[in-house]
Amino acid sequence: MVINNIVLIGAGNVATQLGKALQKQGKNIVQVLSRTLGSAEKLATQIGAIPISNPDQLTRDADLYILAIPDDEIQGVVDSVNFHDSLLVHTSGSVGMEVLKNGSSIFGVFYPLQTFSKTRDVDFSDIPICIEACDEVTCLLLTNLATEISSDVRKINSAQRQSIHLAAIFASNFTNHMYTLSDEILEKENISFDILKPLIRETAKKIEYKSPKDSQTGPAIRGDMKIIEKHIQDLQNDPAKLVAYKIISKLIMDGHW
Amino acid sequence: MVINNIVLIGAGNVATQLGKALQKQGKNIVQVLSRTLGSAEKLATQIGAIPISNPDQLTRDADLYILAIPDDEIQGVVDSVNFHDSLLVHTSGSVGMEVLKNGSSIFGVFYPLQTFSKTRDVDFSDIPICIEACDEVTCLLLTNLATEISSDVRKINSAQRQSIHLAAIFASNFTNHMYTLSDEILEKENISFDILKPLIRETAKKIEYKSPKDSQTGPAIRGDMKIIEKHIQDLQNDPAKLVAYKIISKLIMDGHW
Repeated sequence: MVINNIVLIGAGNVATQLGKALQKQGKNIVQVLSRTLGSAEKLATQIGAIPISNPDQLTRDADLYILAIPDDEIQGVVDSVNFHDSLLVHTSGSVGMEVLKNGSSIFGVFYPLQTFSKTRDVDFSDIPICIEACDEVTCLLLTNLATEISSDVRKINSAQRQSIHLAAIFASNFTNHMYTLSDEILEKENISFDILKPLIRETAKKIEYKSPKDSQTGPAIRGDMKIIEKHIQDLQNDPAKLVAYKIISKLIMDGHW
Repeated sequence: MVINNIVLIGAGNVATQLGKALQKQGKNIVQVLSRTLGSAEKLATQIGAIPISNPDQLTRDADLYILAIPDDEIQGVVDSVNFHDSLLVHTSGSVGMEVLKNGSSIFGVFYPLQTFSKTRDVDFSDIPICIEACDEVTCLLLTNLATEISSDVRKINSAQRQSIHLAAIFASNFTNHMYTLSDEILEKENISFDILKPLIRETAKKIEYKSPKDSQTGPAIRGDMKIIEKHIQDLQNDPAKLVAYKIISKLIMDGHW
């Protein structure tokens, strides 16, 4: 069996990018279900699907139902929607697989490890896709589907996936917030954020060649207290950045502060 | 006048990469001065310079003396070494220009905004070089030199440069530490850091197209307290990551926590 007919539940960042990638590989996205018909329509028109907002209109004939909705909505949808006992997956990094049991007897997880935006198309080919499934046959089915859009498909259990998700928050969400803080610092001096882009590129590139631990530079790793104290002075009127500066410098110095 | 003959004081990351870039553009690196002759030799042989460890051996005939040494050593070197009243610059982000006054009457700052390692060669062509100088003629001289190795040369005063340096610490040093923390989380589960690399690449790439503020994703910006509290539970035995997680999540939520 090969998965061909797919229903997307959700029309957010993940649903949009995953739907586009699957459709590009020739998959038939039958329906897009979203609470708001407008959102469903917006995505459905891009991938040749039928938009619906009423779960009762869900087709019986899909090979796969993908829940790409906020984590805290998964349980509610699983409990209230009829998936006709077909293959049901969610795409969440932090929700266990077992939550799907109530929705169908065939279930799994299809977690693409990436930061998605509706309006920024990403190349799926190198995005790690973490697969977990209720049994071996389902695992193989999902792995085959994932392999059609990515060259990096991994079998990952719920506990590992939760660690990966937590790691991803540090590596991506928190990293992005560091960019935001630096942008704010420059804004105060009327300097364009552009000036930092080559540095940000190189910082991300460096860890392709050596471990982040070995890539660390800056006053904290050098133990240069003179600069650190100067920066703490400079940030006196900006308590949010001050606390971030102190804590992260301390962490880099590994508590020897 | 064009700067041709250059002396490097220092043999660390910045001296190495800047020396290589200047030499590649046809500049004559006359000498490399380092406290340890071995370090001076290591760099000097790569760029056709003479290694020295005694400041008394400094040539009189250089057009430019570049201090690429740790911030807290600049003052000491300036006060104790004879630069024959020639053009003297430092490469520091956080040290003011005026500290050089004692070393020469012609002075300035030549600050390349990048994270450097001795062993990783970087393409200087897009690295912003921040120039400051004691007078207009010197500013022009340094700007011309910088333009030979980079297409992004900016006139930046000491106060602005210090803000840029502080912003760079958030955008690079702190970002790299976020990578380190994520690496440690994965290590515990025996998962290779490789799995995060596409995510890290995309996170850095995203901000080329939209502001970091608009690029923010993850549970904190969504206000998803359920996941946040779960992560806080997961990190109970790791106080360093726990405090980082709490603080940065709070900052992303902009204090509404």
